[in-house]
Amino acid sequence: MSTVALLRPRAAQDLPARLARSAAATGHGHQMRTEDVTGWLAERARAHRFTVRRAPLDRLDGWSFAPGTGDLVHSSGRFFSVRGLDVTLDEGPHRHWQQPVIHQPEVGILGMLAKEFDGVLHFLLQAKMEPGNPNLLQLSPTVQATRSNYQRVHEGAAVSYLEHFTDPARGRVLADSLQSEHGSWFYRKSNRNMLVEATDAHVPCQAGFRWLTLGQIGELLRLDNVVNMDSRTVLSCFPMSAPEPGALHSDTELLSWFTAERARHDVDARLMALGRVDGWTRDADGIGRIDGRFFRVTGVTVEAGNREVTGWSQPLIEPCGTGVAAFVFRRIGGVPHILVHAKTEAGHLDTIELAPTVQCVPANWAPERAEDRPPFLDLVLTAAEGHGAHYATVHSEEGGRFLNARIRYLFVPADEDEAPVDAPPGYHWATAGQLNSLTAHGHYVNVQARTLLACLNSGAVRL
Amino acid sequence: MSTVALLRPRAAQDLPARLARSAAATGHGHQMRTEDVTGWLAERARAHRFTVRRAPLDRLDGWSFAPGTGDLVHSSGRFFSVRGLDVTLDEGPHRHWQQPVIHQPEVGILGMLAKEFDGVLHFLLQAKMEPGNPNLLQLSPTVQATRSNYQRVHEGAAVSYLEHFTDPARGRVLADSLQSEHGSWFYRKSNRNMLVEATDAHVPCQAGFRWLTLGQIGELLRLDNVVNMDSRTVLSCFPMSAPEPGALHSDTELLSWFTAERARHDVDARLMALGRVDGWTRDADGIGRIDGRFFRVTGVTVEAGNREVTGWSQPLIEPCGTGVAAFVFRRIGGVPHILVHAKTEAGHLDTIELAPTVQCVPANWAPERAEDRPPFLDLVLTAAEGHGAHYATVHSEEGGRFLNARIRYLFVPADEDEAPVDAPPGYHWATAGQLNSLTAHGHYVNVQARTLLACLNSGAVRL
Repeated sequence: MSTVALLRPRAAQDLPARLARSAAATGHGHQMRTEDVTGWLAERARAHRFTVRRAPLDRLDGWSFAPGTGDLVHSSGRFFSVRGLDVTLDEGPHRHWQQPVIHQPEVGILGMLAKEFDGVLHFLLQAKMEPGNPNLLQLSPTVQATRSNYQRVHEGAAVSYLEHFTDPARGRVLADSLQSEHGSWFYRKSNRNMLVEATDAHVPCQAGFRWLTLGQIGELLRLDNVVNMDSRTVLSCFPMSAPEPGALHSDTELLSWFTAERARHDVDARLMALGRVDGWTRDADGIGRIDGRFFRVTGVTVEAGNREVTGWSQPLIEPCGTGVAAFVFRRIGGVPHILVHAKTEAGHLDTIELAPTVQCVPANWAPERAEDRPPFLDLVLTAAEGHGAHYATVHSEEGGRFLNARIRYLFVPADEDEAPVDAPPGYHWATAGQLNSLTAHGHYVNVQARTLLACLNSGAVRL
Repeated sequence: MSTVALLRPRAAQDLPARLARSAAATGHGHQMRTEDVTGWLAERARAHRFTVRRAPLDRLDGWSFAPGTGDLVHSSGRFFSVRGLDVTLDEGPHRHWQQPVIHQPEVGILGMLAKEFDGVLHFLLQAKMEPGNPNLLQLSPTVQATRSNYQRVHEGAAVSYLEHFTDPARGRVLADSLQSEHGSWFYRKSNRNMLVEATDAHVPCQAGFRWLTLGQIGELLRLDNVVNMDSRTVLSCFPMSAPEPGALHSDTELLSWFTAERARHDVDARLMALGRVDGWTRDADGIGRIDGRFFRVTGVTVEAGNREVTGWSQPLIEPCGTGVAAFVFRRIGGVPHILVHAKTEAGHLDTIELAPTVQCVPANWAPERAEDRPPFLDLVLTAAEGHGAHYATVHSEEGGRFLNARIRYLFVPADEDEAPVDAPPGYHWATAGQLNSLTAHGHYVNVQARTLLACLNSGAVRL
């Protein structure tokens, strides 16, 4: 048997150009105009009855505090649990603490289906209700499924389009990597981020789904709370391979700096009994810190018509205040560079990941001593107040686990005085192309940085 | 300030050619002939007094069994400890067991210094004694240092050439990634694998060190027990970028298969008290399984002249029998492909890594039912006995932690009947270039597969 016909190129040479063409396609796509998307979302919201009500943690159907540990668990043993986490770091102003954390050791699928119409790649997005979203309904990827979800623990309806991702050989995989979720709220959670091009002649567009170009998604990313977090993280993994004439640091130097940062940090994070977590108390409204900072664990009951099941209860994590996630950027040799931060987050699998220059909830830092405030925070807040940012949009984080978790995402220009080429320890300059190439692999770029990268990939912001 | 001069290319275009030139330089290098290296090693062994004696675990100076847990620990709290591990897998013939494991949460440096002589890259190797090596003295990388080591917990001599790796900006970093160690014997251990080119005009060659070309190292890799494991893993990370006309699976398909394998596995491995590990007993000779399989924890006392300190005691893990690690390979469309295995190992940070087609100690599998024997094991053993392998050399694993841990490394050719293009579940065909490119990142390629990759990178074997 001759096997020559089995060989294929190691990389699809035309893919970056095809993605760039889709990113340039704004205003309207094959199926609808961008300006009609929010109206369509509003219509979907009217057509389906969604009711989300707060509920005490001890009155959530199917959930209970486990005897002995006080962990908040589901009677099926599936979905997720809220447990305790004991954290010891080797540097920073706070080196030891305990907190509640979401434990969900299974890997979910976040999958975006792509298809070419009129020579331009379109992506299939879904109008999806999630109870924690401030506006409930946002644009999700084609498929957003926990393993429980697609193994039918809900015993609800099948997940639409799932077969394109569980059997990717029926199409063409364009990206597929395990990416981390929020390291402050999840214990070692990652999801499979997939971009799959359908090669079927016809892919039916079900109710509640729409084909949009990458450029249209970029336009929608300029609006608050429209493109959900799961869409944003998949978008960050699109293999854009933008040509760049060079960078301040070679790819190997960037990896070497990353390796040194990961090697020098010790993070000891251990699961513990939720009932024994120090500094947190449980009352009728949920579990919170005595000083009211960081977040609360709270509960909701949901009634919905178009979800996998018709009603359920669940705990959610509710942050105390709107966060900020900002990339400081500048041109170096004419090439835009962004300042990444090697950030330890207790829930990450392996010490550090690359985070935005600034990532915090400013209100959490107000009572602190000035010298403990995160670097570049004041530069970013000043730009946000004075309209000096190139991009400033509020997005919400995973509405299936977080309640009203809003973050203001920003790109803030800086000069040599504000952000020198010789970056401070723990910070490093990288090009957008360098950061994008790292999303082919897991555990390099954290979820907040990936939202900002999605804005670059889709053209929502140009530096 | 103009910043144009600060830009550099993202990748060093000439590096693959420079490495290929060094791999082609065989027979002799700038400093010595290949055939003289083993004589030089023997001379080093004669010149320095090394004595390694077995010793009972309760008579190791500075080591003791901790009260309560029975963990084997050093009085300094540093170096490493031997603890217990409780493992639950979701598939395979053995789904739950307990075992001793080495716990050493710090990241060490394995660093190879490179320098050009007469237009050809040479690498600085060291004749290094390690107590677990069957022949004690082997060729190590320039620097092989635990964090305790280079932070001087030993209070011994400084580590030679360390400054090239702790301050890589003084030279040029060619590779730098965190790579896993043995997943059956270590709990989540990784080391920083570094290749740094010295840009100093003159680098003094200290006694006990020699500059060798990559081709010379390849010649030495055809000999048993000469090039130590730490050298081999650094060699596997050399960025060779061999041009290949194509592959059976594109790079993205390979990553997608890897991601699916990692996502579908659940591995639950938890540290536990060594004293409570089930199925293992402690006697005068150490800690072993009741049925004598797998490995023992044993102890040695060392007297040496040229090590960081002049004498010490330590535990070592001693495997029961010589292992086998083999890549099955074949040409597909004229391009050599190797069959990689997505293997769960309990001590790995994240479920699976890519392993050789066959990796086991055959003696461990003899009493098993035939259907539980590892796939391809019989093909590999038949080739090994009948001289059908393209490469068959015994190397020893990390002599600082393992005693007489010999593995026979093999490349075994196969045809469509023996190893079909449509690989069985858990196996996948990859080119050498694809596997090599993954070593730029951590936790893709396990340490045994990296030894085989080192043989390809250095030209010890050609497929």
